[in-house]
Amino acid sequence: MYDMTRLRAARERTGPYVTRTPLIRSSTLSKETGCNIFIKAELFQKTGSFKVRGMFNSLLTMSAADRARGLICFSAGNAAQALAYAAGIMGARAVVTMPEAASLTKIAATKGYGGEVILDGKTTAETYERCMAEVAAQGLVFVPSYDDVGLMEGHASLGLEILEDVPDVSAVFCGIGGGGLIGGLSMALRAAGSSARIFGVEPEVASCATQALRAGHPVHVVNGRTLADGLAPPIVGKQTLPIIAREVEEVILVSEEQIADAIRFLLTRCKLLAEGAGASPLAALRSRKWGFGEKDNVVLCVCGGNIDPARLAAVLS
Amino acid sequence: MYDMTRLRAARERTGPYVTRTPLIRSSTLSKETGCNIFIKAELFQKTGSFKVRGMFNSLLTMSAADRARGLICFSAGNAAQALAYAAGIMGARAVVTMPEAASLTKIAATKGYGGEVILDGKTTAETYERCMAEVAAQGLVFVPSYDDVGLMEGHASLGLEILEDVPDVSAVFCGIGGGGLIGGLSMALRAAGSSARIFGVEPEVASCATQALRAGHPVHVVNGRTLADGLAPPIVGKQTLPIIAREVEEVILVSEEQIADAIRFLLTRCKLLAEGAGASPLAALRSRKWGFGEKDNVVLCVCGGNIDPARLAAVLS
Repeated sequence: MYDMTRLRAARERTGPYVTRTPLIRSSTLSKETGCNIFIKAELFQKTGSFKVRGMFNSLLTMSAADRARGLICFSAGNAAQALAYAAGIMGARAVVTMPEAASLTKIAATKGYGGEVILDGKTTAETYERCMAEVAAQGLVFVPSYDDVGLMEGHASLGLEILEDVPDVSAVFCGIGGGGLIGGLSMALRAAGSSARIFGVEPEVASCATQALRAGHPVHVVNGRTLADGLAPPIVGKQTLPIIAREVEEVILVSEEQIADAIRFLLTRCKLLAEGAGASPLAALRSRKWGFGEKDNVVLCVCGGNIDPARLAAVLS
Repeated sequence: MYDMTRLRAARERTGPYVTRTPLIRSSTLSKETGCNIFIKAELFQKTGSFKVRGMFNSLLTMSAADRARGLICFSAGNAAQALAYAAGIMGARAVVTMPEAASLTKIAATKGYGGEVILDGKTTAETYERCMAEVAAQGLVFVPSYDDVGLMEGHASLGLEILEDVPDVSAVFCGIGGGGLIGGLSMALRAAGSSARIFGVEPEVASCATQALRAGHPVHVVNGRTLADGLAPPIVGKQTLPIIAREVEEVILVSEEQIADAIRFLLTRCKLLAEGAGASPLAALRSRKWGFGEKDNVVLCVCGGNIDPARLAAVLS
């Protein structure tokens, strides 16, 4: 159902541009849970999040003529940084629309990579509208930030790396924003024949996948403010939802306090700076007893580390 | 001059108990400096600092009878945690005296590992006096926290790991508290025949090594409050000073603002939580132009990550 040849090709294509991130075993978490807990330290990725994996695949498989027209995406910030970074390396123009309340760190980093930032929209839905308006007005090429098979095939390299490090992985916890990462991860695991359990995680206040799974199709949602700003798009992807529905065992909802606790734990105990989206898998893991045994290898996708220092300070205080 | 056989034996002896920490190349810092900058991520070490390397060597080479009497050290916190952790694993009693203003995180962690904490002393000199008083009163065995050859031989494993990862290392920056880590590191490099340049780093307000080098012998110092609480003992070691004098090219003094900047940089750009002592090498690196070339491999010893969340929040605000 998923084509390993395509996933391998995407990994080879993007390999020179992305970091092969480490899988770190946490003895503290392993002791706490009675199984082997591994952290996929994707916060060490270029631009501080997984998004470059897919973005490079998208840009490298696009025609040179399209790249020359200039590129645009809408993003809470991590896709914005990834597009700006990848476009910069490939000599293309990158425009991104971001919500007004976007993380200051993500805005600054996107500009730092040479991206042109348009701040517009109280909601991500409005930001999306502005993006489409710019596509029409400027003739830019729209680059999907999550809802795209090629993008997921790029993200799949993260799953292939996990399988190299723990071939007998038992379970993976991964945040769901629009579903691009968990989609790519699911593709990789299943294409390799792994039957690892896949758990999605969403903030209670931003649960577009949960609501789409209930409705049977993507639905527009209005999100509350969440520490996991990377997990709060206005709607889950059309391309990602069927994969989530088929491969993800359960989507776990986590509270803001659970996310904050997980950020603090990763920082003070593991010395890793995770953003809310990256800490959410730990929040889900710690939200209940799972019954994993001592031979189980459980991976938490810490997908990014781009959090505003001021916001982090508030979480710590 | 330094005995590689002894260093290898110490590494083998302590190997089962300590983490083989990764060396992480920073593309951002490498681009900024025009050479290859590597971070020795010792903040991932057991207990969050390098101190367990030497402490296990000390405890494993001690007689069982001595261990049975109970152990004591004085410490700003990282040696305290290391002693409590190592003693706990070996079934020995651990008492530590810590200054009244010690990091709350370090106090809590030491107790968490089963250590008995005595908070006493406005200065580390007073804490040392209290430690000696307890040795006399309780008949405990004093375990040096920096001034000891066996301890340094344990710390030397950090240097051997660096040499495995970058055999042609050009320069190493390392904080100096009492000199135990830089002493062990120097032993390892020179025993292996490396002529890498070794730079020490001290806070401007806590410069016992600088003052001892000037005087030609260890001198008691009165330290100011510093973010690098791990680099502020009352006096440099008698055993460490001759090694520092012989092997360290220069001791660089860094300001509190430079240390704070380095903590912020490591956190927001590298996603790593360094305590002040761990961030000091980066502060020194960024304090001037060094003239390293593109083939130079420069290592920053990020020796620990145990910083109070409240203090970190203040640094971020």
